[in-house]
Amino acid sequence: MTEQIFNVAGMTCDHCVSAVTSELGKLPGVSDVKVDLVRGTATVTSVTPLDRSDVAIAIDEAGYALAP
Amino acid sequence: MTEQIFNVAGMTCDHCVSAVTSELGKLPGVSDVKVDLVRGTATVTSVTPLDRSDVAIAIDEAGYALAP
Repeated sequence: MTEQIFNVAGMTCDHCVSAVTSELGKLPGVSDVKVDLVRGTATVTSVTPLDRSDVAIAIDEAGYALAP
Repeated sequence: MTEQIFNVAGMTCDHCVSAVTSELGKLPGVSDVKVDLVRGTATVTSVTPLDRSDVAIAIDEAGYALAP
């Protein structure tokens, strides 16, 4: 299992957290997603490390942006 | 038909707009709801004027607050 932390820009409320959590949870091999609204981070647990570009696409689908 | 404008506190994103629009749209006699995120207002069109307390309950249900 791998845990990776990503910065997510633009989240402002619990609905945003739900949207990001849902999209990241759809990525193959992901077993857990924890989004911290205050810090603007998403901690993703997966079987193998995720490709950053796949994560960027998922966050974009949710309506937000992967930040550096 | 009556149009009333209410101030809504706490909306930060389009999901918030959807939640408030949905709850206000359930009130009896309401035919249209327009929420302005930037201004923090909800403009409600209804057959007869809405009771402010009913509006407050609906906005609270959505997770926000009717402001003065």
